Amino acid sequence: MQNQNTLLDHVTRMPLTVRMRRSAFWERSHLAGAQAYIVYNNMLIATDFMGAEEDYHHLKSAVQIWDVGVERQIEISGPDALRLVQMSTPRDIGKMARDQCFYIPTVDSTGGMSNDPVLLKRDEERYWVSIADSDLILYYKGVAAALGLNVKIQEADVSPLAIQGPYAQTLVLRIWGEAASDLKFFRHITVEVDGRKMILARSGYSLQGGYELYFEGQSGAGELWDTLMDVGADLDVKVGSPCQAERIEGGLLSYLSDITHDMTPFEAGLGKFCNMTQDVGCLAWEALRAKQSPTRQIRPVEIEGGPLPPQTTFWPLTSGSQTVGRVSSSCRAYDYDCNAAIGLIDAAHWSTGSALMVHTSAGPREAVVKDTFWGRSA
Amino acid sequence: MQNQNTLLDHVTRMPLTVRMRRSAFWERSHLAGAQAYIVYNNMLIATDFMGAEEDYHHLKSAVQIWDVGVERQIEISGPDALRLVQMSTPRDIGKMARDQCFYIPTVDSTGGMSNDPVLLKRDEERYWVSIADSDLILYYKGVAAALGLNVKIQEADVSPLAIQGPYAQTLVLRIWGEAASDLKFFRHITVEVDGRKMILARSGYSLQGGYELYFEGQSGAGELWDTLMDVGADLDVKVGSPCQAERIEGGLLSYLSDITHDMTPFEAGLGKFCNMTQDVGCLAWEALRAKQSPTRQIRPVEIEGGPLPPQTTFWPLTSGSQTVGRVSSSCRAYDYDCNAAIGLIDAAHWSTGSALMVHTSAGPREAVVKDTFWGRSA
Repeated sequence: MQNQNTLLDHVTRMPLTVRMRRSAFWERSHLAGAQAYIVYNNMLIATDFMGAEEDYHHLKSAVQIWDVGVERQIEISGPDALRLVQMSTPRDIGKMARDQCFYIPTVDSTGGMSNDPVLLKRDEERYWVSIADSDLILYYKGVAAALGLNVKIQEADVSPLAIQGPYAQTLVLRIWGEAASDLKFFRHITVEVDGRKMILARSGYSLQGGYELYFEGQSGAGELWDTLMDVGADLDVKVGSPCQAERIEGGLLSYLSDITHDMTPFEAGLGKFCNMTQDVGCLAWEALRAKQSPTRQIRPVEIEGGPLPPQTTFWPLTSGSQTVGRVSSSCRAYDYDCNAAIGLIDAAHWSTGSALMVHTSAGPREAVVKDTFWGRSA
Repeated sequence: MQNQNTLLDHVTRMPLTVRMRRSAFWERSHLAGAQAYIVYNNMLIATDFMGAEEDYHHLKSAVQIWDVGVERQIEISGPDALRLVQMSTPRDIGKMARDQCFYIPTVDSTGGMSNDPVLLKRDEERYWVSIADSDLILYYKGVAAALGLNVKIQEADVSPLAIQGPYAQTLVLRIWGEAASDLKFFRHITVEVDGRKMILARSGYSLQGGYELYFEGQSGAGELWDTLMDVGADLDVKVGSPCQAERIEGGLLSYLSDITHDMTPFEAGLGKFCNMTQDVGCLAWEALRAKQSPTRQIRPVEIEGGPLPPQTTFWPLTSGSQTVGRVSSSCRAYDYDCNAAIGLIDAAHWSTGSALMVHTSAGPREAVVKDTFWGRSA
């Protein structure tokens, strides 16, 4: 049954309100033709420009710039900064280099995931936690207040800008020169934007390679955006946004859909980011030790048949009459001419080749557990 | 300039996704004709049914039921439950009666507001924190983990349902009988729904009077909804949602628009909810003591002229060439044939009768600071 007043049951109207914050790049991105938005960290993020399939092929063949201002930076500084960040994650951050980025699962005291941010080390007593969609800042504020830690915790005025795609490096070198060409994955350097120093990291929410510029403040954002578009014109640079089909086929997880607060890092397949040989100072150390052998885990799933309906709720995975998991994200993997999905599957059914049924909003489909996500080596 | 791909610059398209949770009442509410949604606590909440003005007049003359499932319940239980909740708020909750609801400003260690929930006491060692839009649960988890408190903290499976309007009491009495008629404002009783006990409180996000039912679980929600609609048919019961014009003219604040994390309770005009005569255990006690005399405060503002454009960003308030505040919410106050607004105004300009300019998206308008919000006694 369909509500005749909404556009479609998978797309609705949303009034823009004061509650929905915008980044320094929002206006440029909006005027470039954003067709829809979602809300993420109480900010607007575009979801579609030329259309799902065209955006996907363009990202994989050219270069795009994305307003990813929703990646808010929690700035934690002061003598206890390292200790406080370490309390939130089982990954050992004590030996991070000064130019390093770390993907860190963060957890509450039960080991449930509270976010999956990227941590940037700015210096020995200053970190940026580049968050997915939860108010992780309140966790840090709670811990710091309870223990009287010597830290300052604030949301920095930073609007990350992503430059993604096979020609991202060409574009970045034209603007910031050779320093950027030696930059290794998940390392960062300082570059100049209109005379101001900012962080450029080799990172981003795609598998196509690229960079994220941590643009500070508001002024000059439009000019930088225009420069990127001008300098990249012959590279067919276009405005985009994180591409659902590309990130799902590649197995890039999304907090609040693929990862939920009731999951441990082990269930999310992030055990390799957990240091379990010794207690590095994570408040969930004991809880996580007891949960190292998960009974369900995120796995790649291929769903048989033609294109799927838009997914707006979890889809159950079954084996016979038994529910054995759920699909949290799905897409047409256009380059592979199949349907790619991210499943959370019970141990008895998670092995490669396991045949299941997935109950989509348009009925059941056959599905099979894969060895790896698409475009990933085993 | 307008993005031609979106519907209008104040309304956009939003795809429904797995990330956007729904309450037990969502389907009934949606099928009743919700015309637009926003995202609140990572859930969908409808914003419009018959249209802004018609919804407003109906709320003030009849009775509406609202799916307010976005009011998530943080359940804090255990021997340290009272201590933990008290750490988050300057309001003294030690003497709450067992059937009481308290509006509590919650704050971080600097005194900045982290939420403005309603606290429900369930019993001596069990509280529900009915939150506005922030992950306040992470603050409680952080404090509890840091101090090793003996508490359990979880989001309860509760879908609050609001029954609001002048005929709310008539409708509620028909279903739950006389017990509900003696229920005082911000008190709660236990009622039965299909044989299950649930909490009914005299509360709600309007000034029209009414109730909130804290519906637990998922099953039976549709049947209850249908019963309310059937039993209230002769009262002209309709499906609605929190009404912007009604709540703005009445001065009901909205966290993340009127109240932001950088504001103290005193700036938000909530000093009467802060016990500053003795330290009741709030972690921000010292910080708040130093900030008891705010230099800016929330005040009612009337904006001259005809209906305003939709407000999608803060509007500056000026006096001469000086910025002296901002308007965070504005509406046509239909019953008063004027424009009502909520302002945050510097001390030198906040007195009643102060004449200012407000810079709307459609140009400047004259504005004046009022003594009280509309329909409130001085």
